[in-house]
Amino acid sequence: LFSATAADASRCANDGYDIVRNISEVEQGSFGRFGLSHATLAGAVLHGLKEVEVWFTTVAPGVGTPIHRHSSEEVFVILKGSGTLYIGSSANSDQDHPGTPQEYPVFANSTFHVAGGVVHQVRNTNEHEDLQCLVAISRPPMKMFMYKDWFTPHTAAKMVFPMFWDERCYEPEETKDEL
Amino acid sequence: LFSATAADASRCANDGYDIVRNISEVEQGSFGRFGLSHATLAGAVLHGLKEVEVWFTTVAPGVGTPIHRHSSEEVFVILKGSGTLYIGSSANSDQDHPGTPQEYPVFANSTFHVAGGVVHQVRNTNEHEDLQCLVAISRPPMKMFMYKDWFTPHTAAKMVFPMFWDERCYEPEETKDEL
Ligand SMILES: [Zn+2]
Ligand SMILES: [Zn+2]
Repeated sequence: LFSATAADASRCANDGYDIVRNISEVEQGSFGRFGLSHATLAGAVLHGLKEVEVWFTTVAPGVGTPIHRHSSEEVFVILKGSGTLYIGSSANSDQDHPGTPQEYPVFANSTFHVAGGVVHQVRNTNEHEDLQCLVAISRPPMKMFMYKDWFTPHTAAKMVFPMFWDERCYEPEETKDEL
Repeated sequence: LFSATAADASRCANDGYDIVRNISEVEQGSFGRFGLSHATLAGAVLHGLKEVEVWFTTVAPGVGTPIHRHSSEEVFVILKGSGTLYIGSSANSDQDHPGTPQEYPVFANSTFHVAGGVVHQVRNTNEHEDLQCLVAISRPPMKMFMYKDWFTPHTAAKMVFPMFWDERCYEPEETKDEL
C-alpha cells in the first residue's frame, strides 16, 4: 500500500505533494454532491495533518451544505458571493432536535465559526453568484452527522465518515497497523 | 471580571461579538511588531474556541515573522503579495539547532502548512507589495518559541506566551477558577 501507483499518488498525496501549492492547481471535485466543489488545501488524509484541516469550497446558487453537525470546531471565511448561515440547537443541549434555525446573512469578506456539536447549514441564497469560502476545521478527519430536516432528532442524524472527499484515500488506522 | 466595562468588551470580545463579522471591520493591530498587522478572525481568547484559530495577517515589504516554532499545526493561505517561506529542522529532530533553512517561494493563491515543532519563518521578500494571508492554527492559544537566528539552539529559543495580540485579553485558567 505504501508503493502506490503514480495515478494513485497524484490523488492521494501523502508525502507526494509540493511544500507550497498553487490553489488554482489543486484538484477540485464535486464528489457526487450536486452544486458543490471541494478541494482540501491541507488536511489529514492527503497531507498527514493531525489537528487542523483547511478546505476551499464553492457552492452553486441555490445549493447548500447538508443540515449537519460535527464535534470539530469550524471557522469560515467567505471569499466571494453571499448566502445564509442557519444555526439550530446543539446535540449537547436539552433539545432533542435542532429546531427552527436562526438565520444570519453571510457575505464576501465575512467570517463566522461554529462550535462543536451545533447543528448548522450554509446555503448559497444568492441566485446570481457562486459562494466561495475557506473552511478551517479542528481534529480532522471530520466525522459528520447529517439531518434530514431541522426536526430530525439528534439521535437519528446519519453519520458520514470518512467525508465524501476523503473516501478515496482514507486508510483506517487498523489497516496501517497490519502492514 | 465577567461584568467587563463596555470599553473592555469591545476589545475582549468573549460573548460580545457578532455571529457573522465583517473582516474589514475587525480591529487590526501591530502589537509593537514593526510592519505587522494582525487580526484574530476567530480564536480562543476572543471567541472561546478551543481547537482552532484563524488569523488575518499583513506583512509589510522586507518584514517577516520571527524565526520560530510552536507545537500547533499551522496552515497558510496567501491572499495577496509574495514572499519566502524558510523551513529549518524540527525541535523534535536530532539536530540541536534549526540550521540553514530550505527556501520556498510563496505567492498569491498559494497554500502551505507547517507541522508542529518545525522551525520556520515567512518573510515578505517583495519590495513593492504587502503580503497578506490567512493562517489557521490548531490548539489555541498558541505558545511560540522565538529563535535569534537559524543557529540558536532549540533549547535557547525564547518562549512567547500569550501571543502579542492575546496579551490584553488573556486570562489564565487559574484566575477563572478563583471566581
Ligand atoms: Zn460544518
Ligand atoms: Zn508559525
